[in-house]
Amino acid sequence: MGNSLGKKFVITSFGESHGRCIGIVIDGCPAGLAITGKDIQVELDKRKPGNVTASTKRVEEDKVDILSGVFNGHTTGAPVCLAVWNEDVKSESYEKSKDLLRPGHADYAAFIKYGGYSDYRGGGRFSGRNTAGFVMAGAIAQKLLDIIDVKILAHTVEISGIKTNSRSLISAETIENNPLKCVDAKATQKMLAAIELARKEGDSLGGIIEGIALNVPAGLGQPIFDTMEGELAKALFAIPAVKGVEFGAGFAVSGMKGSENNDAFRIKRGAVITETNNSGGILGGISNGMPIVVRAAVKPTPSISRKQETVNIDKMENAELEIKGRHDVCIVPRAVPVVAAMMAITLCDFALQAGIIPEVIK
Amino acid sequence: MGNSLGKKFVITSFGESHGRCIGIVIDGCPAGLAITGKDIQVELDKRKPGNVTASTKRVEEDKVDILSGVFNGHTTGAPVCLAVWNEDVKSESYEKSKDLLRPGHADYAAFIKYGGYSDYRGGGRFSGRNTAGFVMAGAIAQKLLDIIDVKILAHTVEISGIKTNSRSLISAETIENNPLKCVDAKATQKMLAAIELARKEGDSLGGIIEGIALNVPAGLGQPIFDTMEGELAKALFAIPAVKGVEFGAGFAVSGMKGSENNDAFRIKRGAVITETNNSGGILGGISNGMPIVVRAAVKPTPSISRKQETVNIDKMENAELEIKGRHDVCIVPRAVPVVAAMMAITLCDFALQAGIIPEVIK
Amino acid sequence: MGNSLGKKFVITSFGESHGRCIGIVIDGCPAGLAITGKDIQVELDKRKPGNVTASTKRVEEDKVDILSGVFNGHTTGAPVCLAVWNEDVKSESYEKSKDLLRPGHADYAAFIKYGGYSDYRGGGRFSGRNTAGFVMAGAIAQKLLDIIDVKILAHTVEISGIKTNSRSLISAETIENNPLKCVDAKATQKMLAAIELARKEGDSLGGIIEGIALNVPAGLGQPIFDTMEGELAKALFAIPAVKGVEFGAGFAVSGMKGSENNDAFRIKRGAVITETNNSGGILGGISNGMPIVVRAAVKPTPSISRKQETVNIDKMENAELEIKGRHDVCIVPRAVPVVAAMMAITLCDFALQAGIIPEVIK
Amino acid sequence: MGNSLGKKFVITSFGESHGRCIGIVIDGCPAGLAITGKDIQVELDKRKPGNVTASTKRVEEDKVDILSGVFNGHTTGAPVCLAVWNEDVKSESYEKSKDLLRPGHADYAAFIKYGGYSDYRGGGRFSGRNTAGFVMAGAIAQKLLDIIDVKILAHTVEISGIKTNSRSLISAETIENNPLKCVDAKATQKMLAAIELARKEGDSLGGIIEGIALNVPAGLGQPIFDTMEGELAKALFAIPAVKGVEFGAGFAVSGMKGSENNDAFRIKRGAVITETNNSGGILGGISNGMPIVVRAAVKPTPSISRKQETVNIDKMENAELEIKGRHDVCIVPRAVPVVAAMMAITLCDFALQAGIIPEVIK
Repeated sequence: MGNSLGKKFVITSFGESHGRCIGIVIDGCPAGLAITGKDIQVELDKRKPGNVTASTKRVEEDKVDILSGVFNGHTTGAPVCLAVWNEDVKSESYEKSKDLLRPGHADYAAFIKYGGYSDYRGGGRFSGRNTAGFVMAGAIAQKLLDIIDVKILAHTVEISGIKTNSRSLISAETIENNPLKCVDAKATQKMLAAIELARKEGDSLGGIIEGIALNVPAGLGQPIFDTMEGELAKALFAIPAVKGVEFGAGFAVSGMKGSENNDAFRIKRGAVITETNNSGGILGGISNGMPIVVRAAVKPTPSISRKQETVNIDKMENAELEIKGRHDVCIVPRAVPVVAAMMAITLCDFALQAGIIPEVIK
Repeated sequence: MGNSLGKKFVITSFGESHGRCIGIVIDGCPAGLAITGKDIQVELDKRKPGNVTASTKRVEEDKVDILSGVFNGHTTGAPVCLAVWNEDVKSESYEKSKDLLRPGHADYAAFIKYGGYSDYRGGGRFSGRNTAGFVMAGAIAQKLLDIIDVKILAHTVEISGIKTNSRSLISAETIENNPLKCVDAKATQKMLAAIELARKEGDSLGGIIEGIALNVPAGLGQPIFDTMEGELAKALFAIPAVKGVEFGAGFAVSGMKGSENNDAFRIKRGAVITETNNSGGILGGISNGMPIVVRAAVKPTPSISRKQETVNIDKMENAELEIKGRHDVCIVPRAVPVVAAMMAITLCDFALQAGIIPEVIK
Repeated sequence: MGNSLGKKFVITSFGESHGRCIGIVIDGCPAGLAITGKDIQVELDKRKPGNVTASTKRVEEDKVDILSGVFNGHTTGAPVCLAVWNEDVKSESYEKSKDLLRPGHADYAAFIKYGGYSDYRGGGRFSGRNTAGFVMAGAIAQKLLDIIDVKILAHTVEISGIKTNSRSLISAETIENNPLKCVDAKATQKMLAAIELARKEGDSLGGIIEGIALNVPAGLGQPIFDTMEGELAKALFAIPAVKGVEFGAGFAVSGMKGSENNDAFRIKRGAVITETNNSGGILGGISNGMPIVVRAAVKPTPSISRKQETVNIDKMENAELEIKGRHDVCIVPRAVPVVAAMMAITLCDFALQAGIIPEVIK
Repeated sequence: MGNSLGKKFVITSFGESHGRCIGIVIDGCPAGLAITGKDIQVELDKRKPGNVTASTKRVEEDKVDILSGVFNGHTTGAPVCLAVWNEDVKSESYEKSKDLLRPGHADYAAFIKYGGYSDYRGGGRFSGRNTAGFVMAGAIAQKLLDIIDVKILAHTVEISGIKTNSRSLISAETIENNPLKCVDAKATQKMLAAIELARKEGDSLGGIIEGIALNVPAGLGQPIFDTMEGELAKALFAIPAVKGVEFGAGFAVSGMKGSENNDAFRIKRGAVITETNNSGGILGGISNGMPIVVRAAVKPTPSISRKQETVNIDKMENAELEIKGRHDVCIVPRAVPVVAAMMAITLCDFALQAGIIPEVIK
């Protein structure tokens, strides 16, 4: 259990990094949505390893395969199963070092939980490759959100401690045109330099991704437990490297006074808005009509080529580990479309729960 | 919907700040647990407004009332319903200002979601008083965790930007003996001064709470969606003022290299441990046997006595608001036992799912 | 776990026969529904023991107490908690015979499951009294169904093997005016005679209840697992004495040919109808616009005054049991409003899922 | 939504009759279970159309394809995805008559629910072919139940009103060796004659299937809503043709007295048993250690070759329909392994919930 997410737009994930495929079943997708493989492929391609951030050499291109739920170019109301077949799989290296717990990876926790039966090849079930399924489901969720004009933008706001400015430039285009999915050209240069250095050192870098959802209607969220913050956070923590999630002012609230943090309500063009958005568009666990703003902290990829201390779990003795083969120096840019996908999936679920997106699309 | 949490230890919350009661139903509590009202009352008392942080004048003492599920001093396996009856309720002031949206509160979001039918008295369903139910359920969860020796400590680590040190002093006693639930005496003095100043200014202060769970066995958590991080975060975001949640190194991972952030595995006294705990005891969404460490950012109480700009939602025009009556200057210390409760509830649920806590306690 | 039912209109039951109360929390009730205690009391009163069927002497009148979720005469969107306080509780007799397993009751199964910690007084958690909670929730569900004109009628169609005819007379009035909730006056006479005889013999009688839902729109139900049949059946099997559930032609399909059982579609006044209704208004797990027809088999009350063979579970030896005190000779008529309630709860949940009943009632 | 079943052993179904495949994802399967394609294929083969009951000419053999969750011959704890690829698909006939609602089928209900976007080819999502997924999941559930020695036997007890006797002969062998999965040779002859006649008449026949689960430990089931009866019934109603479900004495309880229906408890070889089993092994929604006995009424296949009256949904006018092509005269024998599968899935889920089957198989 634990591989399904959502109440009305329910995604169920399956597959492993070096198994047959990575798949996702979407249950609760309204009927009548026009969808093609191309719609999904566009999103999937955003997740491809970039030239600047990766040493990754996996040559395969992830191609979506629609297994069910789409007929005559439209969703049918039946579960939509989407898969990406694994092809360029080289598992030998994992075979050799399978008893050496990789620091920062799930190896040990999974070993205990699953009694040593986990598929260890390429991280198996814990691989970032599973996020390909999230992105495919997110593509469909975004198509549904298009109906109510909700637009999601995710972008890199920090890598290796280097912060961005210039948020005024945020747009889908500026994000996609930047190799680090960052809208600040100046910061990008510094980040690229840091990445280059880390690559040389056989090391990796972390960062922070910000997601923004525009035009989210007020009233979404199910307090007091299934809150907008709670469900978004839960969805984002499903991304392997995420270790923190904050909304609006986030952790900075600690240094703020109530008079600073409270967003004053005002009437603007006949609508209620807030002058600031420290709440990140969420009050009482419910969207308030302002942009939803969330940030996720992404840890540096644990796979590094530097030698590391660890344990041989079979022999129960200390050991050393050197991980060869492909790995990303900085996963942050590749995680950007995944953050957008998890936001789309969560917001789509809430919108369906509220009946704002209908059960049949005409 | 949205008022239940958990899979096997399922809590369902009901009640309003100025209604009849605050209640919680616990479904899935094993049979045979020895429990008395006093066990629960002890925890409830930790949530009482303190002298130093509050202007609160609600004189009532929250007294637990066990409505079901306990027989002859033991749980029966049937749902345990616990309630606190509201007695010192003064709702007149809310009546007068009911159309003035309180900045930082759920008023507007709830108005839209529930079409103006919400109980607005004292925040109604969105009041921090609901956390009394969380604490009652947490008391039972902690009793269950005692069986497997899991111990939870929550403490204040930041108020108004003032950070604590001296974490080596953390213990249940040092926390409870400090008026701010903070183990750093020096920081406490500075925090108290900041609170005193904010009180005079009619303002409020935010902070950060850290929760630590000791002796959590490796293997708890249900990836890839019902992860340890995801479920803890979701539970913590149910606390009204929480705006950020991070684990282990948290947002600081952005500035770390993989070689710094990775926790090296080592054998120690025949067991696998990690030398550092940047992961906060969680890898791949599963506990790894190290202490679970989580931090929650608590925004300054939105109820402040200073005049604020807002909107009259009935007249749809700009207005000013002055909130009289009781309110906390700094909610952080009162939220500390609530953080502990949400952790206990979540960990207890995972332990029951894994069969580590049995269905009948002997 | 297991004490909650529903996806969007979620009821959570708590309480015991001889505990403090019987309660129900309804999560997901739309805001703005006008509701009074009287609306609920009317339904609760239908569940009262009748003069003709019971030897029951419990004098207390079940009075609904609204604990949360209703403000200014309307639901608020918050959980509605309803309780009936237990007052006329005499538990001594249960104390004496607590080790004697009552045949046909849950005693043994519960003893094993809950390790002997169950509340055995009056059946405790397994008492038919819990259905008072169902009826209270059903009253609210029916008020919601009124909005879309769905009407539910349940009536007795068989007692002690005596079958009714005259279904053409079915109406709320004819049902309520009959002491056995049976619309066939002739059959009623025979049933009453059978009941009188069973009373003298210290025995009890079973029967069959039919529930009919009119005006259910086509399209409700969530195949392939959360079907209309599956969810209605699950809800009805929560009534302690129910041992069978069938829809439309039900078990009689075994003797029918496809050409007999298939309901021919026809156009009637511009709408698609079926000429017969062997499907009971459900095809493919989805309502088809015809009346939903379900029947539930109700076993004879296991509590009988005749001496019975059983086991002393403490001594693990054979024993004899004589149950004194109140009990119903024929529970069937009292179960009729409970069948109606479970249907209302289930249909209301489906209607909310489909967005046919809105989240705010204006 | 609605395409997942279970709490801890959660199956998610996808696929259509004439789409790419029929698939099932099993989430919550313990790690370490030895499983091969052959184990699953054996069960799948039991669902093949028989020579005696079918006019079915679909030549393809359903071959299981394991897509995830199995590694080195054992389950890994990750979701197990199993698929059967559709190959011998002839959809032309469906194209021609797609506007003619097939009586007894889901066509109309689905048309309304999904706005005309359903895949109508071969019943699409509502086809009995989906039960291939159930059987594959059931094969794994049964392997898990083997660990605790629970054995499930399902067999035909009625076809076309012809009842079986000789239940003493029930065994896996006698069932599998009979062309109708019926252990009564004499009844089988009569049933075969009835089937032959129906075939000539272009008609179809219904029946009743009985499922028995042996060695189910007492204490399984989650009252008061997630009862053993309720969950088994819900699972069985997911089989397209099932219109009634009863336990133990079932609908016959209506004609029984309490003194007849109550199963007397006795001590036998140191254990508590009941002398009769009218309860079908379930009291208070919990298993009591006796065999679980359930019966499901299976309606005659709605697809018959006789001319039928219906409606053209596009033109909204009355019409006639003749269904050509393959169809079963009597689906009952093919539904027998499906009943067994749904029982296995449900019992396995309860056993996992209770911790009786461990999370890792050694």
